[in-house]
Amino acid sequence: MPALLVNADMGESYGAWTLGADDRVMPHVDLANVACGFHASDPDVMRRTVRLAVANRVAVGAHPAYPDLQGFGRRSLACSSAEIENLMLYQLGALAAMCRAEGTRLRYVKPHGALYNDMMRDEARLTAVLRGVAAFDPDLPVMVMATRDPGPAKALAEPLGVTLWFEAFADRAYDGQGRLVSRREPGAVHHDPEAIVDQALRIAHGQPLVASDGSELVLEAQTLCVHGDNPESIAAVRAIREALGEREPLE
Amino acid sequence: MPALLVNADMGESYGAWTLGADDRVMPHVDLANVACGFHASDPDVMRRTVRLAVANRVAVGAHPAYPDLQGFGRRSLACSSAEIENLMLYQLGALAAMCRAEGTRLRYVKPHGALYNDMMRDEARLTAVLRGVAAFDPDLPVMVMATRDPGPAKALAEPLGVTLWFEAFADRAYDGQGRLVSRREPGAVHHDPEAIVDQALRIAHGQPLVASDGSELVLEAQTLCVHGDNPESIAAVRAIREALGEREPLE
Amino acid sequence: MPALLVNADMGESYGAWTLGADDRVMPHVDLANVACGFHASDPDVMRRTVRLAVANRVAVGAHPAYPDLQGFGRRSLACSSAEIENLMLYQLGALAAMCRAEGTRLRYVKPHGALYNDMMRDEARLTAVLRGVAAFDPDLPVMVMATRDPGPAKALAEPLGVTLWFEAFADRAYDGQGRLVSRREPGAVHHDPEAIVDQALRIAHGQPLVASDGSELVLEAQTLCVHGDNPESIAAVRAIREALGEREPLE
Amino acid sequence: MPALLVNADMGESYGAWTLGADDRVMPHVDLANVACGFHASDPDVMRRTVRLAVANRVAVGAHPAYPDLQGFGRRSLACSSAEIENLMLYQLGALAAMCRAEGTRLRYVKPHGALYNDMMRDEARLTAVLRGVAAFDPDLPVMVMATRDPGPAKALAEPLGVTLWFEAFADRAYDGQGRLVSRREPGAVHHDPEAIVDQALRIAHGQPLVASDGSELVLEAQTLCVHGDNPESIAAVRAIREALGEREPLE
Repeated sequence: MPALLVNADMGESYGAWTLGADDRVMPHVDLANVACGFHASDPDVMRRTVRLAVANRVAVGAHPAYPDLQGFGRRSLACSSAEIENLMLYQLGALAAMCRAEGTRLRYVKPHGALYNDMMRDEARLTAVLRGVAAFDPDLPVMVMATRDPGPAKALAEPLGVTLWFEAFADRAYDGQGRLVSRREPGAVHHDPEAIVDQALRIAHGQPLVASDGSELVLEAQTLCVHGDNPESIAAVRAIREALGEREPLE
Repeated sequence: MPALLVNADMGESYGAWTLGADDRVMPHVDLANVACGFHASDPDVMRRTVRLAVANRVAVGAHPAYPDLQGFGRRSLACSSAEIENLMLYQLGALAAMCRAEGTRLRYVKPHGALYNDMMRDEARLTAVLRGVAAFDPDLPVMVMATRDPGPAKALAEPLGVTLWFEAFADRAYDGQGRLVSRREPGAVHHDPEAIVDQALRIAHGQPLVASDGSELVLEAQTLCVHGDNPESIAAVRAIREALGEREPLE
Repeated sequence: MPALLVNADMGESYGAWTLGADDRVMPHVDLANVACGFHASDPDVMRRTVRLAVANRVAVGAHPAYPDLQGFGRRSLACSSAEIENLMLYQLGALAAMCRAEGTRLRYVKPHGALYNDMMRDEARLTAVLRGVAAFDPDLPVMVMATRDPGPAKALAEPLGVTLWFEAFADRAYDGQGRLVSRREPGAVHHDPEAIVDQALRIAHGQPLVASDGSELVLEAQTLCVHGDNPESIAAVRAIREALGEREPLE
Repeated sequence: MPALLVNADMGESYGAWTLGADDRVMPHVDLANVACGFHASDPDVMRRTVRLAVANRVAVGAHPAYPDLQGFGRRSLACSSAEIENLMLYQLGALAAMCRAEGTRLRYVKPHGALYNDMMRDEARLTAVLRGVAAFDPDLPVMVMATRDPGPAKALAEPLGVTLWFEAFADRAYDGQGRLVSRREPGAVHHDPEAIVDQALRIAHGQPLVASDGSELVLEAQTLCVHGDNPESIAAVRAIREALGEREPLE
């Protein structure tokens, strides 16, 4: 079984406000997607989160977003390609500085929220995201959604010399194209721990899932996205971790 | 004559708003203090400003500030030492990323506005500033105000392994302690180009100035701060440049 | 000739940054669209701008926007209807307080930038804008773009008890639907002062313009939008003012 | 027994972040200090909070602050008097609009955090706060800290025509001057419910407290500040409410 790395969003507190249970989730993941101050986090939260990741030997990735604290980066913002490239650079650099101060380094990039969704449906935005990363460090892999056909995304990334990491979800239903079924649809989210673990293992082994249209769907994925914002999801993280096997702490 | 490097604030536009005449001043300075998005600048302005510096072979320094766009970083904000350390890191990293994207690197740090003033009168804040720089890269010199006695600042910087660059002003009167005379006092600002050039040359040669209390004042300074926000000040920059001799463009 | 009120955007400075020449344009307009702090302006600029309007006996209108200072409110933001309604309320209230402090009151509302554009092409957003105004004060007219068919907008406003003021442009070409020709097209912007004044007069008299497809276009408009951000446009404002006749200062 | 109104901070959530248990505290207070978007809250949270106050027939007051979301308004910011006056106006107006939309009106003002502390030790800032309120509506009372000598604050408020409401704390120790003992001192905060209720009743009856220096302290207070951010404090709110007697819901 090839390694399927487990990633989770971290450092999404802000000032006096706390979000998530980073200290309870961190021990179970391989990759910490750390907010960079545009949708959540601030310099103090970022430093604290990187320190927590280092203490747990978890790899730190940047989780850049549109500049929209009030909307938590979940509202699409009509940025130009140059603006996206530059807001990527700014956020990557800010987090990289925190890594440096804590004796580690940035390992990958996962765009957040509306920026992530926009780049998955608009090649111009995906290109802008990739150009921002490439301008900073082309050796940083960029996480994108695993879909039925990874070809188009790869075709954009390759000329820029950027590696893609495809991510899948254990607790979400997929449609025939390999896109997530909208949360508004019935059955979009799995709540049964056994079903979640089963889907995680299928993805890890490259075995087909059953899409919402009944077709078989094989997702090529290097990483699995988990959430840790409530007791139920934290339990699911632990179950997935156990099923996938001990994590290999970062050297 | 030892080199006296000329520094000026740059990249202080923001979004749709323009401030300063960066393209007219850049050719005459050695050091560009580039705003980092907390008191002015945004990712697009920062990238453009670094590109302009590179085109003019000018060294890029970070010009970090308190988070206060509306107040242009000129209002003191009661941050803790940890907050100052972390806001330094964040801003240094963000600008360093722009440098990387434009094929150059960060060379030094000059705190802005109220943060600069606060660190000059409060050792705890100066220490926090220096710790932020040291955590990012102890090889980056930090600009502080040249005063009669550079000893106390050096005593704080040395244990952290940080080099200080003392900066002086050619167009401002000094008091007996080597502090700037308040702008509210008569004679605080020199407007006569000859007087400005004379003061620049005296500083460059280590010759004494006459302080406002009549005493002689020798300032040990590695750099001279100039401004480029109006035609008069741009003329002064040119005159100072000519008097100090051709600048040595960055390799 | 029915009155055609002249409106212009005002108070678009922010903190240390100045934009526009409010003091030169204010004497020539009937209506000042004052920014409310979300795309430009701050409490100090708003108060100063309202004071300037009062001194010139100009009516103050609110110019609310998406929360996007860096983008000057020109980037569409995917807000929900409730969010739009509430950001309208917040900004109307803030400006109304400045009016109260300066002895005047809010007279109308003109959404800014991307919010204006979005409401003109999306009935849900226009409804949200109108609901925000109606919740604050249904007696405040709302400016919308004059197009060939004012019917759809009126149909949304009427049930909410809100009056619409249709605005036209003297310096822009219109297409057959009565929409502005994109600035990217040749001939989209008139630069000839005579042509501008002629178009203003035609609109004022209810006479047809020639649309870009050659058809005749009659625009029902209560107000004309002018700009005052450069010497050319300020000259145009004066010429339009002269052609339309003396303005009637607010009682 | 004269009425002692119970006030609590409300609406301190922001965007995706929740703070406080407004729905559990609201039924027990007379006065809701609603954040206005500068230290906490946003247009959506404000509207929701005002709606909750109205449903509970609780009076809405404005809780304006320095512009510092990251620092939750707890860091002093060196604003000028004019800046303070204008940021007061802006926030009062914004919240007043929410009140209007929900069928109620603003009843009083309580500055928040560092702005509150600064005005209590600096007459220029208190004057600026009062001038902001007076410019908006001189009929709005302003809450200030009850101390041994209310004279100086009254002397500033009277010429502006503003009424002061003095507020006291049931769970905090006072020093001989009638100032709160710093939280860093032992015994600064009462945890014993009986002691808290006893102090509330003494304040309500105009009976003396024992100050930290052993002296008797009579506080003239119209309102009592309570907190509702944890189960212990919510229990204290209920006990205080019961001791003070049924609240009189707003007409």
